Amino acid sequence: MKKIGFIGLGNMGSKMVTHLLKSNYEVVGYDINQEYIDQLSPNGLKKANNLNDVSKGTDIIITMLPNGDIVEEALDNIIDRLKPGTLITDCSTIDVNKAKELHKKCKVKNLFFLDAPVSGGVGGAENGTLTFMVGGDENAYKMMLPLFGVMGQKSLLCGTYGSGQATKACNNMLLATTMIGVGEAFNLGTNLGLDPKKLFEILSTSTGSCWAVNNYCPIAGVGPKSPADKSFEPGFSASLMYKDLSIALKAINDTNTLAPFGIKAQENFRQMVNDKKGDLDFSAITKFNE
Amino acid sequence: MKKIGFIGLGNMGSKMVTHLLKSNYEVVGYDINQEYIDQLSPNGLKKANNLNDVSKGTDIIITMLPNGDIVEEALDNIIDRLKPGTLITDCSTIDVNKAKELHKKCKVKNLFFLDAPVSGGVGGAENGTLTFMVGGDENAYKMMLPLFGVMGQKSLLCGTYGSGQATKACNNMLLATTMIGVGEAFNLGTNLGLDPKKLFEILSTSTGSCWAVNNYCPIAGVGPKSPADKSFEPGFSASLMYKDLSIALKAINDTNTLAPFGIKAQENFRQMVNDKKGDLDFSAITKFNE
Repeated sequence: MKKIGFIGLGNMGSKMVTHLLKSNYEVVGYDINQEYIDQLSPNGLKKANNLNDVSKGTDIIITMLPNGDIVEEALDNIIDRLKPGTLITDCSTIDVNKAKELHKKCKVKNLFFLDAPVSGGVGGAENGTLTFMVGGDENAYKMMLPLFGVMGQKSLLCGTYGSGQATKACNNMLLATTMIGVGEAFNLGTNLGLDPKKLFEILSTSTGSCWAVNNYCPIAGVGPKSPADKSFEPGFSASLMYKDLSIALKAINDTNTLAPFGIKAQENFRQMVNDKKGDLDFSAITKFNE
Repeated sequence: MKKIGFIGLGNMGSKMVTHLLKSNYEVVGYDINQEYIDQLSPNGLKKANNLNDVSKGTDIIITMLPNGDIVEEALDNIIDRLKPGTLITDCSTIDVNKAKELHKKCKVKNLFFLDAPVSGGVGGAENGTLTFMVGGDENAYKMMLPLFGVMGQKSLLCGTYGSGQATKACNNMLLATTMIGVGEAFNLGTNLGLDPKKLFEILSTSTGSCWAVNNYCPIAGVGPKSPADKSFEPGFSASLMYKDLSIALKAINDTNTLAPFGIKAQENFRQMVNDKKGDLDFSAITKFNE
């Protein structure tokens, strides 16, 4: 069985590690917050006192960190100590170009790198139902496949390096646009005197149907339980959606793509974060047009 | 069995009438285009030479016409000749306020009125799989229910008069927004080097999933067969989507609703129609940002 090093034991990482430990993987874990490490050691996590400890004798390093610069910093710290053939799988959501850079850095050291951002949020990490969107070499993907299976329920090799991040950016940009569209549809319907439950019944079964209305309806008391039923407690916070849309925006600019709805969605979420509403669930964006 | 008068025997109406005739309803039909009437008479349609003929002895009048002014004109022509208690069901897509006016006009003459626009397009009319979104009184709805069952597979009483039109406007505004969002996601993904088939695999099963991507993907060769696979032969034309979005826009303005994405979608489709692309399927809007 492969020996795993895990860097980043926050909301997401701690739950992913727990699944690995339950499946009897040997995992050595590190976080800048010592408490996070201590909390997991009763479950069998081996404590790393520093990044160097994570790199010793591990076959696979998994990173789950807030942004690309932090991933790069961690990687720079350990890259010269890893044995050739070690696989680094970054599950963080980071810039597409940064993911490509990290892949190149690893390649010159004869290390494998996969960008493998997830969807499913904290709930998905806890329940082991994450989806991994993966970019990189097929051999590296195959090496990682059993671990994806332990931490999530689905993974897809989307293409060469950077493709995992690119796919996530596209998906979440579409999610933001559909959620804003759902909000507008309910606002208009309500203003026209419609009962939101009747409107839901049509939208969720007609050509307007989408995950945002069917599974995550932003109107309290309408559709399956969602953050709207808990005063928009996340779920998936507006701040995280803003982060993802900012990654999408950078990709839009880097590739000269015309995507006015995606750009406008990023602006709306930036406004929400500036208004100190970033801790609300992202579906609360629908309230900002009311 | 109720005797039916049917006004408007075009692409949609002709197919709806055919289902009624197959179910042995007595239908007298009228269209300004005499050919349309003649084509249906071998199926058992009784020919009306004018609107007056449609109103004679009929219990239910169904209208399927291009816009609200034409519906009103037809109604004005027959309203004084209809026996009290006659039900007029307008299946056209028209302004929410116009539908409310027509309901009032009927009420003072002791006639019933339902606004009952459909979704499902020409294919749905042909296959009898239309959805009817209905506004009006419950008794009138119940009277109409067997006929909805013959012409379609689903109907929902959305609320009081105007609610059918309001619901359709909300649904189609959401559809337009999601389709534009889907186009942007594929454009960005392609520019980032993703294989559209791989991107489809994620989008259609993740939080970005929506009818527009899952059932009507605007990329040729990706997903189930759709107008994109037939050079954007409609389907549901951009002109019709523009009409529906213009009804939504009027409702947005009448109710002071903030709906910037819906408003922008209407502008995009107006541009498409102005560019003489209105005969293409509405999903071709996704090509205009490329």
